[in-house]
Amino acid sequence: MANSKYEYVKAFERCQPDILLPNTWIVIRIDGRGFHKLTAKHDFSKPNDRRALDLMNEAGVGVMRELPDLILAYGISDEYSFVFHKDCNLFERRAAKLVTTVATTFTSYYIHLWSKHFPDKELTPPMPSFDGRAVMYPSVGNLRDYVSWRQVDCHINNLYNTTFWALINQGGMSATAAEQRLAGTISADKHEILFKQFGINYNNEHDLYKKGTVLYRDYDLERSNPSSATAETSLSSGVAAEGSTDSIKAQVTPSMASADAAIAVISKTQAEKEKKRRAKVGVKVEHVDVIKDDFWQRRPWILSGRAGKLKEEVSKAKRGTAE
Amino acid sequence: MANSKYEYVKAFERCQPDILLPNTWIVIRIDGRGFHKLTAKHDFSKPNDRRALDLMNEAGVGVMRELPDLILAYGISDEYSFVFHKDCNLFERRAAKLVTTVATTFTSYYIHLWSKHFPDKELTPPMPSFDGRAVMYPSVGNLRDYVSWRQVDCHINNLYNTTFWALINQGGMSATAAEQRLAGTISADKHEILFKQFGINYNNEHDLYKKGTVLYRDYDLERSNPSSATAETSLSSGVAAEGSTDSIKAQVTPSMASADAAIAVISKTQAEKEKKRRAKVGVKVEHVDVIKDDFWQRRPWILSGRAGKLKEEVSKAKRGTAE
Amino acid sequence: MANSKYEYVKAFERCQPDILLPNTWIVIRIDGRGFHKLTAKHDFSKPNDRRALDLMNEAGVGVMRELPDLILAYGISDEYSFVFHKDCNLFERRAAKLVTTVATTFTSYYIHLWSKHFPDKELTPPMPSFDGRAVMYPSVGNLRDYVSWRQVDCHINNLYNTTFWALINQGGMSATAAEQRLAGTISADKHEILFKQFGINYNNEHDLYKKGTVLYRDYDLERSNPSSATAETSLSSGVAAEGSTDSIKAQVTPSMASADAAIAVISKTQAEKEKKRRAKVGVKVEHVDVIKDDFWQRRPWILSGRAGKLKEEVSKAKRGTAE
Amino acid sequence: MANSKYEYVKAFERCQPDILLPNTWIVIRIDGRGFHKLTAKHDFSKPNDRRALDLMNEAGVGVMRELPDLILAYGISDEYSFVFHKDCNLFERRAAKLVTTVATTFTSYYIHLWSKHFPDKELTPPMPSFDGRAVMYPSVGNLRDYVSWRQVDCHINNLYNTTFWALINQGGMSATAAEQRLAGTISADKHEILFKQFGINYNNEHDLYKKGTVLYRDYDLERSNPSSATAETSLSSGVAAEGSTDSIKAQVTPSMASADAAIAVISKTQAEKEKKRRAKVGVKVEHVDVIKDDFWQRRPWILSGRAGKLKEEVSKAKRGTAE
Repeated sequence: MANSKYEYVKAFERCQPDILLPNTWIVIRIDGRGFHKLTAKHDFSKPNDRRALDLMNEAGVGVMRELPDLILAYGISDEYSFVFHKDCNLFERRAAKLVTTVATTFTSYYIHLWSKHFPDKELTPPMPSFDGRAVMYPSVGNLRDYVSWRQVDCHINNLYNTTFWALINQGGMSATAAEQRLAGTISADKHEILFKQFGINYNNEHDLYKKGTVLYRDYDLERSNPSSATAETSLSSGVAAEGSTDSIKAQVTPSMASADAAIAVISKTQAEKEKKRRAKVGVKVEHVDVIKDDFWQRRPWILSGRAGKLKEEVSKAKRGTAE
Repeated sequence: MANSKYEYVKAFERCQPDILLPNTWIVIRIDGRGFHKLTAKHDFSKPNDRRALDLMNEAGVGVMRELPDLILAYGISDEYSFVFHKDCNLFERRAAKLVTTVATTFTSYYIHLWSKHFPDKELTPPMPSFDGRAVMYPSVGNLRDYVSWRQVDCHINNLYNTTFWALINQGGMSATAAEQRLAGTISADKHEILFKQFGINYNNEHDLYKKGTVLYRDYDLERSNPSSATAETSLSSGVAAEGSTDSIKAQVTPSMASADAAIAVISKTQAEKEKKRRAKVGVKVEHVDVIKDDFWQRRPWILSGRAGKLKEEVSKAKRGTAE
Repeated sequence: MANSKYEYVKAFERCQPDILLPNTWIVIRIDGRGFHKLTAKHDFSKPNDRRALDLMNEAGVGVMRELPDLILAYGISDEYSFVFHKDCNLFERRAAKLVTTVATTFTSYYIHLWSKHFPDKELTPPMPSFDGRAVMYPSVGNLRDYVSWRQVDCHINNLYNTTFWALINQGGMSATAAEQRLAGTISADKHEILFKQFGINYNNEHDLYKKGTVLYRDYDLERSNPSSATAETSLSSGVAAEGSTDSIKAQVTPSMASADAAIAVISKTQAEKEKKRRAKVGVKVEHVDVIKDDFWQRRPWILSGRAGKLKEEVSKAKRGTAE
Repeated sequence: MANSKYEYVKAFERCQPDILLPNTWIVIRIDGRGFHKLTAKHDFSKPNDRRALDLMNEAGVGVMRELPDLILAYGISDEYSFVFHKDCNLFERRAAKLVTTVATTFTSYYIHLWSKHFPDKELTPPMPSFDGRAVMYPSVGNLRDYVSWRQVDCHINNLYNTTFWALINQGGMSATAAEQRLAGTISADKHEILFKQFGINYNNEHDLYKKGTVLYRDYDLERSNPSSATAETSLSSGVAAEGSTDSIKAQVTPSMASADAAIAVISKTQAEKEKKRRAKVGVKVEHVDVIKDDFWQRRPWILSGRAGKLKEEVSKAKRGTAE
């Protein structure tokens, strides 16, 4: 079509650097914008509003279902992190497209599901919205440290908030007084305040609040490795070995590295097939430790990017031969 | 808070270049993802579905209301472009934040308002979502050419689609046959097909379809400049003079350019005041020519970034002294 | 050629964002690396070493000669800024290529010409080197403010250094004592120290030291505008009018803006012709005020990016008709 | 210092994305600009000019000496690639600074050493210059594939050029005829032409031409691993194990990954110490296969980024206890 006179402006679009580096793990993190106002407007309960977290998680599951390239998601409070595998080539790894697709799909579910979780609260402007960003992590270690960082944050914030709101709601303190009371305290102090002053054993709080929520494709778990239970940092066990094999393949020998690349190029059809397999299985919603090795060792498909064992197959077969 | 062990991963976030160049116009364009499937699923009427366009436009207005920094928006089909002034410093001009905020706010309204415009169509997964991008334009000329590009696209696509669907719906052709019939035709040919074969005068089609939709702050229009009506390219009239003064200030004399910068730094309070003034006036929804000078000359507040004359003031005062 | 197995690594090169935004002025600034060691090693005289500055300037001229796309350069101390016109399309505006080409060409001349300026000082490792960066400026105002910033820096630094070294060399102070003496002083104080204590009238210092060095294509100067001599900020005079006309053309009217773009696309041959014309004229080396309008008004070819009047033509013709 | 009026322009410098992603290998590749003209101007011999390559290599050694952070360099023809370790934090990993420093230091040596290698050829404008770029590689596999890519290129180009120039210089063909003669030929064909027609056994050509030049810190080689000689892809041997341990540490266990990060932060002093150790040993210049594992297995300090065994220590001590 003719249209040439003004079309030169398209050239300006090339100037936003956008292609994320190949062979790096991509994390898209979204955050609720101005959610303190939203929580006030709709009287969210403190320190945690179960309905609000359920809504976040159901929206997260919606995103996982629509984007089979995602291997994992982790949510706390009003934020959610979505992880694409380092080999993922969705949208040719264009950052803007990845981040807006994840953020608007999440928003779409959030608004759509609002009335299910808050049947008595009508949404009115200003409407909930989310900002987002894309970050690259070159190694599995970096990626796991990212997830660990978020879960440690969850723990620290929730312990603080639980104590803070106990001082206010049950202790009758003002917000300022509660803040001053907690200034300079360490974890043990907060546990003690909760227990001695309010009879709350923090360890009995719901894992949803203490550990956040992790989403992943629901394949059959690997049998727990007894040796790894006590020694998560052992390099010789389970996933560590898996990981090491993987990284040797990916990193050390040139022929295999290029073989990888070759695969990435050649077997688009296989990539599509994997994607369809991932799309078929359900999305598991859990509130567990994602810092220790155990989580990753028992779910090797997350980091391998390959489909795991289907649960049905296993139950039918009752054999340990899969894969 | 303690949290230092994993926190180093934050350093990886700095590596996505994100700050948009100061003193450039920022356009955020969003596009419906896979909307051909959506239109099929919900039986959108062809070539244009009035309800769908009304929904897009109402979502656009929602975005304009929530982000007073926006000076203009232009929508066609399932895409919308939002324009921030070159002096805008929202989110410190971080691209990811700007693009995700606009895209998710739009999505939020789109989903929320869906049932109003499609009361009989329930949304089900996959849900509507939008991708987005940020583009910088250094000059007013580039920015206007961008808007012109989109409006020319609107015209070309709508003329094609109107003829295409007339051949199918009224002419009983197959899609393939209609496509072949239109191959190689120019505008005049399509006008003739519409008129001779189907009695449709394209010029009588609704401007919503032919011109798309422009959104801007609803200040009092400048009096049309009679001389400019016939000579849009005249440099001596209306906005051109406005523009030239502006650009002289901004571009030629160093003292004033730095004065501008000084203002940008010093009077954050004034910028806030302007923002509030913008937030107060309504958002005008129009289907008009945005290619010719007239549109911009009569609405000088769009490019100047300053509040225009309030309509009430004018009607009360009946004097030309405002501002 | 076969070579495909490893060639996938080329894909990683796309991920460094590199294309500079069209329609923006490009400044490449280079800085001597660790030149304080170099100055010590080769006993540069203080506060200014004439030979070292002459070497910098001759290297700068070499760069201007080899890259006709450059419109201006400005040097002080061990730094040099080179300016490409906003319409320049050299290396398709790839930042890395522009910055390394300028930086290595400068280095090449610097080393080659070293023995001419320092016949008695042999270069030995570590060798002189320069780092560099590319910065974009959207408007003429921004660009002139950049140049002004560097010249103000030159002035401030030179006044300080001149006084500092007078206190040491003539006043017999230690570096620490001189530093303390100058702490908190303003310009007037330093002028007074120089004059009263050492009989130095700073205004009589060489302009090379006080104003730095500006390089540009040596066309025939415009006649000085008498009105502008006293009122540099007047918008109605000389270059300001030039500039304003230019910016109106470039920024306000869409047809002309796109005409510009069209030209940019169509007449590569014309661009080449301009380049050749620029390559033919000499490079002027001056130590003058580049902050006030006068410099730019009398050399309109710098900002217009078009060839100016050749000096010979003028002297032959003795008429005011040129171009 | 006062200087604030124009200083706002510094804000524009933030907009060039510059920080290279942590934990990725950085390759700076520089290429001679317009060297075909240079080779013509100075009558370089064909297909290879020994003096020109010696000059390139000596300049490369100069760069390695001045930048102890470099772990490796590889040169062919008029290009050179320099590799920084993935943990390197030189210039805070700012791309522009890294690339210009490497490129101008190389240029500095190239010009300085020219007269030594070409005593009878005086440099005149246009002067030699180099463009450069920075590329990130996340894994050792990617990095080795990059180096392999360049060495395969060296081989392919040199075989072609050797045959091409034999056809011309000894065969009396025109360039066009030689080109046509070689069109569609594979390696074996070129070997045959060389041998049958000109009595040249390509395998006897100098390794400098066939394999290019690799530069690295000259520590004591590891004993060749007999098993690896026949099985380069074996994962259990030498460097592979080294690499695997490394990558396990870096990638799989979170505690160790963060320990790594902690080290990177804490022990700047140790990093400095390593740097000094690297600066002390010589730079080895070799023309060997860098595609197979053997090269990397016997020089584990290259990829580990830690100092290797000093040659003197070994010869003195005659014991296998070092480190």
